[in-house]
Amino acid sequence: MRSLRNKSRRRVADLNIELTKLGFHAYLCASPSNIQYLTASSPLRRAAHAMLVTPEARPILFTSLMDSALVKNEVKDMDLEILRTSENPDESVAERLQDFPAEKIGFDELSFPRFQFFRKKLSKRKFEHRPEILSRMRQVKDEAELEILKAAAKIADAGLEAAVEAVKAGVKEYEVAAEGEYAMRKKGAEGCAFDTTVASGLRSSFPHGGCTDRRLREGDTVVIDIGARFAGYHSDLTRTVFVGKPSPRQIKVYRAVCKAQSEVLKRLFPGLKGWEVDAMARKVLSEEGFDAYFIHSLGHGVGVDVHEAPRLSARSQDVLQHGNVVTVEPGVYLPRSFGVRIEDLVAVTRSGPRLLTESQKRVY
Amino acid sequence: MRSLRNKSRRRVADLNIELTKLGFHAYLCASPSNIQYLTASSPLRRAAHAMLVTPEARPILFTSLMDSALVKNEVKDMDLEILRTSENPDESVAERLQDFPAEKIGFDELSFPRFQFFRKKLSKRKFEHRPEILSRMRQVKDEAELEILKAAAKIADAGLEAAVEAVKAGVKEYEVAAEGEYAMRKKGAEGCAFDTTVASGLRSSFPHGGCTDRRLREGDTVVIDIGARFAGYHSDLTRTVFVGKPSPRQIKVYRAVCKAQSEVLKRLFPGLKGWEVDAMARKVLSEEGFDAYFIHSLGHGVGVDVHEAPRLSARSQDVLQHGNVVTVEPGVYLPRSFGVRIEDLVAVTRSGPRLLTESQKRVY
Repeated sequence: MRSLRNKSRRRVADLNIELTKLGFHAYLCASPSNIQYLTASSPLRRAAHAMLVTPEARPILFTSLMDSALVKNEVKDMDLEILRTSENPDESVAERLQDFPAEKIGFDELSFPRFQFFRKKLSKRKFEHRPEILSRMRQVKDEAELEILKAAAKIADAGLEAAVEAVKAGVKEYEVAAEGEYAMRKKGAEGCAFDTTVASGLRSSFPHGGCTDRRLREGDTVVIDIGARFAGYHSDLTRTVFVGKPSPRQIKVYRAVCKAQSEVLKRLFPGLKGWEVDAMARKVLSEEGFDAYFIHSLGHGVGVDVHEAPRLSARSQDVLQHGNVVTVEPGVYLPRSFGVRIEDLVAVTRSGPRLLTESQKRVY
Repeated sequence: MRSLRNKSRRRVADLNIELTKLGFHAYLCASPSNIQYLTASSPLRRAAHAMLVTPEARPILFTSLMDSALVKNEVKDMDLEILRTSENPDESVAERLQDFPAEKIGFDELSFPRFQFFRKKLSKRKFEHRPEILSRMRQVKDEAELEILKAAAKIADAGLEAAVEAVKAGVKEYEVAAEGEYAMRKKGAEGCAFDTTVASGLRSSFPHGGCTDRRLREGDTVVIDIGARFAGYHSDLTRTVFVGKPSPRQIKVYRAVCKAQSEVLKRLFPGLKGWEVDAMARKVLSEEGFDAYFIHSLGHGVGVDVHEAPRLSARSQDVLQHGNVVTVEPGVYLPRSFGVRIEDLVAVTRSGPRLLTESQKRVY
């Protein structure tokens, strides 16, 4: 608890340094993920409406009366303000901003009507959309965050193992998901990182297949994409398995995807650009004749959000840094046939990639 | 499948009638829930980036290359447009809008930067934020939707039963959640409607307590709030139970909350305003001396979103209609002590309230 408080204090201080450098007098956090990050408290994600950070004073957390007891229980170093009305909770935020001498106010995310409301209420202030200030901070994980992410990855490993064990002809896709999710919950997951995918047969050719009540059949390819939320952080893991003995074509695609992934895992170092990493995988798949069927990007950062910076995609200029945590997930999707994806969660470090997920990959 | 297609066609037609009435030439749906509703397809919630509806032509669905196979598989009566770039998918939407003669364009929800992008790209068009056009349509459920919601409620009943069975001293909160969620998944749930709450002991006094690794103790109050997602629709159900024999004070609060709920359930008819229904519950709790501890609103509509119109809150002017589905969930939260909430999902009909959740309420 104490260390979390220190962590929150340090993050707020870092943000204030950035704000001062950039000439901002205040920063309005409306993103639950950013609020979680700055308070170092996962329940705050749900319980806080907004957070106002300024170099001049302690941060202010805005919360409903309903959630105020929980917030008080979690956060000690911040001022708490209870929302006056649930009809428009931003009334209270705007009032407090009016008391501030802040001219230039940054914000992370607002819907159009919320932005409009603030601009009207505070017509003399300048609001600037600057989400990158926090996403840059968040993409570099400290050791404590890496430990949490490792724990989340371990839970996903357990979920995947239970799901794979459930795979057999006659079982429904969602029944496979049920076993995986149950195993994760029993290991302490706060929930799923995202909707589990168990995409079988033809459906494995849909990268975001989700689950249906389709029953697995002999010969099916089954893509299982599963992840846990733990202490507010996420994991993301995919394996592809076959019901019964795979065909030569299934094996050929599977091997190509494995090879693309292992090439990247060998060479994932700080300093590389997102597009360069994406290109490594694409090159292997091209040599194998499958690059036209790799129809998504190679990976994404994972942390307080399951999709965050840095991006590993064909046009990404993000530069990998020590402390990034990313997925490496090449896939090949043969239209009207089947698909294979293999995904691991990896920490980028100076001494090379550190695999966080450890589920085995069957060798064919 | 065919009936879903008809349903989608009818909803789009209804929207177009509204648009014509209000003088809109096009409507941009960016809300995944609205896209699901208009396409009558739950997977489209995830797989479509946006949808453009106009009285002049067939609707256009925008989707990434990655998800296009899934979308083609789901939707037949609409035009499909594959996003040119994932960097800014709205480029493709704006281009298509440029071909449109539409002057006045309504939209449901856009973040500030997305709105800004469209306004700059299409500076001669008038964009209007009109979310209520669809939320009004969505709050009145047809018979098929009521059946889906009933199925989702039945799954929540099964989840609650399994969770309550797991309640005993020594068990962790998240282990109780694990059993409830597993039971729901086995019954065909697509996932949880929201983060399950298992809030025990002092934590039961937090309305949004979530789950922790706290172990239940003899004498604890345990609030269990659970819901399923099924076919893209949601359920929402809360029961409060006690570990061992409750104290006279626990029983007193429990009875007061039950009484408040049953009073409302007797008198929930079309024509009432949201605030009137909220006041019914508040009146009972005031007679029992607990109204100061009822720190949230009485209920909310449930459907494609787990929180939607109509609202049952102190200031809600929403008028109940035949076909609404709402939660009725009074609660009393005694600070630094314990809390009790009881919640059911109810369809509002001309012939009176129809309970969708059927979990029993223990009588003390």
